[in-house]
Amino acid sequence: MKFNIALLAGDGIGPEVINEAVKVSDAIAKKFNHEITWTPALTGACAIDAVGVPYPDETHEICMKADAVLFGAIGHPKYDNDPSAPVRPEQGLLLMRKKLGLFANVRPTFTFPSLIDNSPLKRERIEGTDLVFLRELTGGIYFGEKGRKDGGETAFDNCVYTRAEVQRLAKKGFELAMTRSKKLCCVDKANVLETSRLWRETVQAMEKDYPEVTVSYEFVDAVAMRLVQWPNSYDVLITENLFGDILTDEASVISGSMGLMPSASVGEHTSLYEPIHGSYPQATGLNIANPLATILSAAMMFEDAFGLKDEAEAIRAVVNKSLEQGIVTEDLATKGTKAYKTSEVGDWLVANL
Amino acid sequence: MKFNIALLAGDGIGPEVINEAVKVSDAIAKKFNHEITWTPALTGACAIDAVGVPYPDETHEICMKADAVLFGAIGHPKYDNDPSAPVRPEQGLLLMRKKLGLFANVRPTFTFPSLIDNSPLKRERIEGTDLVFLRELTGGIYFGEKGRKDGGETAFDNCVYTRAEVQRLAKKGFELAMTRSKKLCCVDKANVLETSRLWRETVQAMEKDYPEVTVSYEFVDAVAMRLVQWPNSYDVLITENLFGDILTDEASVISGSMGLMPSASVGEHTSLYEPIHGSYPQATGLNIANPLATILSAAMMFEDAFGLKDEAEAIRAVVNKSLEQGIVTEDLATKGTKAYKTSEVGDWLVANL
Ligand SMILES: CC(C)[C@H](C(=O)O)[C@@H](O)C(=O)O
Ligand SMILES: CC(C)[C@H](C(=O)O)[C@@H](O)C(=O)O
Repeated sequence: MKFNIALLAGDGIGPEVINEAVKVSDAIAKKFNHEITWTPALTGACAIDAVGVPYPDETHEICMKADAVLFGAIGHPKYDNDPSAPVRPEQGLLLMRKKLGLFANVRPTFTFPSLIDNSPLKRERIEGTDLVFLRELTGGIYFGEKGRKDGGETAFDNCVYTRAEVQRLAKKGFELAMTRSKKLCCVDKANVLETSRLWRETVQAMEKDYPEVTVSYEFVDAVAMRLVQWPNSYDVLITENLFGDILTDEASVISGSMGLMPSASVGEHTSLYEPIHGSYPQATGLNIANPLATILSAAMMFEDAFGLKDEAEAIRAVVNKSLEQGIVTEDLATKGTKAYKTSEVGDWLVANL
Repeated sequence: MKFNIALLAGDGIGPEVINEAVKVSDAIAKKFNHEITWTPALTGACAIDAVGVPYPDETHEICMKADAVLFGAIGHPKYDNDPSAPVRPEQGLLLMRKKLGLFANVRPTFTFPSLIDNSPLKRERIEGTDLVFLRELTGGIYFGEKGRKDGGETAFDNCVYTRAEVQRLAKKGFELAMTRSKKLCCVDKANVLETSRLWRETVQAMEKDYPEVTVSYEFVDAVAMRLVQWPNSYDVLITENLFGDILTDEASVISGSMGLMPSASVGEHTSLYEPIHGSYPQATGLNIANPLATILSAAMMFEDAFGLKDEAEAIRAVVNKSLEQGIVTEDLATKGTKAYKTSEVGDWLVANL
């Protein structure tokens, strides 16, 4: 098969980890007889520097024409201390999500047996954790009307959801649950928020179409607790944009493998694959960043965007092997063992595929 | 001294844990020569059953006239599956907060050395944890305009904050930080929300009035992570209503002592003291609920509402002693040790004061 992949390396360590994901993807393509064309495009702080906006139209066109987008990370410290600066890398992220119609962010959290002791949680609490959040990504308070009144003394952000927005996200949740343990948890704050009541009534009405799926409804504050107490009691969770932002980040640290977590954002047009970690500016150019989250995001891309399960499994298998054999970057190297460079990990994976 | 305390036992285990807090408070009053008058009043599901509303005017008047309110818990399973029922116990809670002007919810999270191994987190992650959240409690998306449009197909919740609302909460945060380690963390989502940008700019402008306090600004998603990773890196945290709801619950489980955590809500009128746990309906009437969170809330009341530090310390000391000696309810009893009844724990504390 032939694929055209938009390559959005972004800022900070983005280019370095993307580079390794490209190497591994190319090696997989060669092995399974596919042909990948990579089309690089600018986004984030580097796009602001080059053309003044964080998600240029040209980048958008490249993404729209591609079969998938592989994304690194964006963000630069020079924008960190002034969240009200007129142009910021995050705006590019939000614009990209909106323009590509990426309404569902898919965030798996799972444990790697060889890394389980990295977790801040006790082993018995996290063993067997394998959950997936589906976070709504183009609605809610992120995209509602916002502004100031009373000469700047009053600020407001409006959270808005339509039934159709909830349905399309929930549909993905039910479908995903059907391929897994048929357990779905809808996370809301229906005891306080009207948007949450819309979420809950919409999901309740869909239950009859998926009679095999057991649905539970939990308040966001209760989930924030239980995720720390018994993460392995969850399977598929669906939630709105802001709750998803908070809970997926919380969930990512429980496995102790945060630096390895991939994600996908899917919706109306091209799907996008990216590591959950950020641009890690302090490590830029040092060849020390862990490329595995990006490489596992590429595996998600092969499986979900291209329907190539064997290719994805081959990537995951060699990643597991590298972890077991300790071919890891400094974030995972334990005292006394060698820390490999970003590019050395990529080379090893390619050689061992 | 003489005190008039409004006693809102509420639902479920509320009356049982309140009963023990009354016993211990009376014993302390006797020992230190104070006189307490308790004025019981209805709230929650039991108020709905009795008079049709969850926070009756009569209850409000009793609270307004009192020197402090001691609160148990509210909620009943018959309201749990229908978050859109016209009258619900939670509405009483929100109305009470609003009418009493309880704009700051004070939620300490700390570890008890004897309970540290109850935590889902590893010992080395939580040792020394001693943080306090100040959650804004009468504004934000909880109290903004909410409703439906398009014949019910679109729902909205408006989040609104004024500079004055942020200032009065932040002032309490700075003042609290001055009495502790002079570290204040403002939790927001200023990279996305206009209300968060108002929070951040308001707190930034107040920094000059508290030159000794070191203020950090962190995004809510990052805090949701770091709370699990390094809870002991925080001290005083201030945040808006909904973020506070999620993060305080998350924080409460990390210490492993959730059943023991007290809280206070303070503001324009009478202050209110309550355990952070809920009404635990399954345990109602069984005399098994842990009364310590309510008893420690009474200690906060003595210290903060009445300025009686010795009395508060005496309660805390005897609670610590009971924990060390294993005089605990079944939630804390370890295999092979005896579980004491709710009332037996209260009796023991009174006898050992
Ligand atoms: C950078 C920020 C706007 C973004 C979000 O809040 O969605 C990030 O936290 C994420 O989760 O991708
Ligand atoms: C019951 C609910 C309305 C309430 C809240 O969200 O404030 C509760 O979760 C709390 O934190 O006291």
